[in-house]
Amino acid sequence: MQSWIDGQPAAAVNLQNRGLAYGDGLFETIAVRGGRPSLLDGHLARLTLGCQRLAISADLALVRDELLRYASQLEDGVAKLILTRGDSQRGYAPVAGAAPRRILQGSPLPSYPVEHAEHGVRLFPCQTRLGEQPLLAGLKHLNRLEQVLARAEWQDSEHAEGLMRDGQGRVIEGVYSNLFLVRDGVLFTADLSRCGVAGVMRAALLEQAALLGIPAQVCDLPFEALEQADEVFVCNSVYGVWPVRGVAALNWSPGPLTRKLQAVARTLLET
Amino acid sequence: MQSWIDGQPAAAVNLQNRGLAYGDGLFETIAVRGGRPSLLDGHLARLTLGCQRLAISADLALVRDELLRYASQLEDGVAKLILTRGDSQRGYAPVAGAAPRRILQGSPLPSYPVEHAEHGVRLFPCQTRLGEQPLLAGLKHLNRLEQVLARAEWQDSEHAEGLMRDGQGRVIEGVYSNLFLVRDGVLFTADLSRCGVAGVMRAALLEQAALLGIPAQVCDLPFEALEQADEVFVCNSVYGVWPVRGVAALNWSPGPLTRKLQAVARTLLET
Repeated sequence: MQSWIDGQPAAAVNLQNRGLAYGDGLFETIAVRGGRPSLLDGHLARLTLGCQRLAISADLALVRDELLRYASQLEDGVAKLILTRGDSQRGYAPVAGAAPRRILQGSPLPSYPVEHAEHGVRLFPCQTRLGEQPLLAGLKHLNRLEQVLARAEWQDSEHAEGLMRDGQGRVIEGVYSNLFLVRDGVLFTADLSRCGVAGVMRAALLEQAALLGIPAQVCDLPFEALEQADEVFVCNSVYGVWPVRGVAALNWSPGPLTRKLQAVARTLLET
Repeated sequence: MQSWIDGQPAAAVNLQNRGLAYGDGLFETIAVRGGRPSLLDGHLARLTLGCQRLAISADLALVRDELLRYASQLEDGVAKLILTRGDSQRGYAPVAGAAPRRILQGSPLPSYPVEHAEHGVRLFPCQTRLGEQPLLAGLKHLNRLEQVLARAEWQDSEHAEGLMRDGQGRVIEGVYSNLFLVRDGVLFTADLSRCGVAGVMRAALLEQAALLGIPAQVCDLPFEALEQADEVFVCNSVYGVWPVRGVAALNWSPGPLTRKLQAVARTLLET
């Protein structure tokens, strides 16, 4: 589907855009089914938080309206929303009054092998470590060179995802996903206050776990936590939940809590 | 002057460009005088290193030729060269064979107050700290949200630059410049192997210092090194050298080594 800028069909963005110059903006990758964006409130909540932290004064009601209109025309696919601080002349200083640019791009729903969801995926152990930057941690901003470098580490189709750690070796997330592990019936996922992207599906699963009475902890996860895990899974807001079969020398089978949350994710994406 | 993409006049870049999507690229900001780019070899050397480290397979001879052509038409000004990995569909994975995009933008030479060079500037002590990422440190890549956040910390015209430190409080650089300090006749500048941008003027001044027999050390600089400095200056490849008059409670006067290297920088920019 044709892309939009500020609600109008467009194929190109002004060279003065600060998204290009500095990665000065945010994005959301949103599954669209039957013309409706999945997890809409979660995506808008993260975008709102990003705008606050980067001091981008976007009209978020307008962003929402445009996204709904775009999704209704896309029907089934993935809508990518990019929100940049707008255009400016050379120089890092944000220009007061610059109009943030709203970009919408559509692509077909990806057709992942069904085994990813059924039997799980192997994670490539990325050497690229996530740098710590508390001011940007959690946000889905446009500065994504770490993910580009990490994703370039493997070309084989055996690994559907990569495992990303921080400089201390702590387990943080996947390149495209968040990671959960289960031990003794408790759900664990990494604290993302120093690095990482706080995924919309991660937030939704934590919320659903609380409603279902599944104990969950958000905390630092040393690599040993992975070694001791009973179950591991990754999640994002396009495919939901994939069990993790292994990473490096570690191996797991899809477990009961993974299956339960996989069903929850499926429901979240379909309603 | 009209911008170019891949050698052709253009005002907009394709929405699939990975520079916009992920900040997946590099840039150089080059002073142009009399139709010639200053410090050309230094800029191309840093760009080459960046391409190697990001595995961007650009035709650097072509980049050089286009830059020379663009500069000859710009006459006097600043040429900004952006080199992105090119276009791709959604997804972090670099696409084999994608053609890197060469973007050139021109602007007038900035007219800084003459006092900046003569009497020096005050640095705003930025709270934004530079995150550590050895894989990207030194490069002038397009992931520049830290600089955007740091530059947004002050609006007054009293501060012409900001001082950026790392998470440990070590002195690294300015928002737009590198920083040198002098103590007991020795020149010091920060080691940039964990964070920071290795400026082309910084490299040129270190080279010239060696030729002039001025002892220089590239090392970690705790904040106390600044407190104990006899002279402090910042440099970049547009304005050359500005003495630093002060930051927070610290104050300096432009010293002899600063003046000597300021003259060196002027010569480098004019030849």
